[in-house]
Amino acid sequence: MRVLGIDPGLTRCGIGIVDSVGPQKLQMISVGVIKTDIDSELEIRLMQLEKELSVWIKEFKPDVIAVERVFSQLNVRTAMATAQAAGVALLLAAKAGIPVVMHTPSEVKAAVTGSGRADKKQVAQMVKRLLNLKEIPKPVDSTDALALAICHHWRGVGNARLASAKKKAVKKK
Amino acid sequence: MRVLGIDPGLTRCGIGIVDSVGPQKLQMISVGVIKTDIDSELEIRLMQLEKELSVWIKEFKPDVIAVERVFSQLNVRTAMATAQAAGVALLLAAKAGIPVVMHTPSEVKAAVTGSGRADKKQVAQMVKRLLNLKEIPKPVDSTDALALAICHHWRGVGNARLASAKKKAVKKK
Repeated sequence: MRVLGIDPGLTRCGIGIVDSVGPQKLQMISVGVIKTDIDSELEIRLMQLEKELSVWIKEFKPDVIAVERVFSQLNVRTAMATAQAAGVALLLAAKAGIPVVMHTPSEVKAAVTGSGRADKKQVAQMVKRLLNLKEIPKPVDSTDALALAICHHWRGVGNARLASAKKKAVKKK
Repeated sequence: MRVLGIDPGLTRCGIGIVDSVGPQKLQMISVGVIKTDIDSELEIRLMQLEKELSVWIKEFKPDVIAVERVFSQLNVRTAMATAQAAGVALLLAAKAGIPVVMHTPSEVKAAVTGSGRADKKQVAQMVKRLLNLKEIPKPVDSTDALALAICHHWRGVGNARLASAKKKAVKKK
């Protein structure tokens, strides 16, 4: 199964493609960041994003697209732009007939590290380890996109880990 | 000039087309509401909206598209959906090469009624009057879309009215 992970954004949209290549074995196929022109009007930036995202979808033909679900952000303008970037991803997936799933940041963290409260560094380290990479991809948006794709592959495993961690926590009480 | 006004939303997206047919004379060409299936997944609803909006754009070939700019809403989930619906409208406009402009609700109210704090009823009454309609279009989303289109046509006039109202207010002091 091939998963395309998308960390939505207009200034930087993280993209990561991860295949399952064996039982519990994952492989990074590609990773990158789509940037849109910060000086352009919103509608032009959305169109730039749509164009680039379509290229990735056509090129890599993912079986599933995983998009980060952002519920709240401090800056309203940023939140709107992020929601609209996510909307473009959802729209493209629907038009291409590719199933699309949204995961919250804490679901991603839990699936990748076993803890929904892990910090960026811990997530990046686990992405590197799980995908057997020599270095952590940069910028962080691209690592986040890979984490999303891993989350989709490993969600079951992650949930089991979380359940086991909770069990341990309960036992300690 | 033909303006397509869009009051973005996924449950109900208001659409209104208004032409300028003489000096300070406007005419409603069409009005309606696009509904998407409330039980469908978000990506399917965005695709439904995109499909219907494209039909309106192809059918009526507007010179300008005016979209309501929503900054804040109490419900985050609704705000995201509204932002994404607006994003779809912006994307379609950019892809069709049609200029797109966003107006805030208070800009629309000010342009149509002369007061940025007018209530829904006052706006609806002015829409009816300015477009010489026999009745106020329903639901309110469609009236709001017409108000947006009028706002784009009348922005200058509305601003002048607002300035004059402010002048009067200052004089009264």
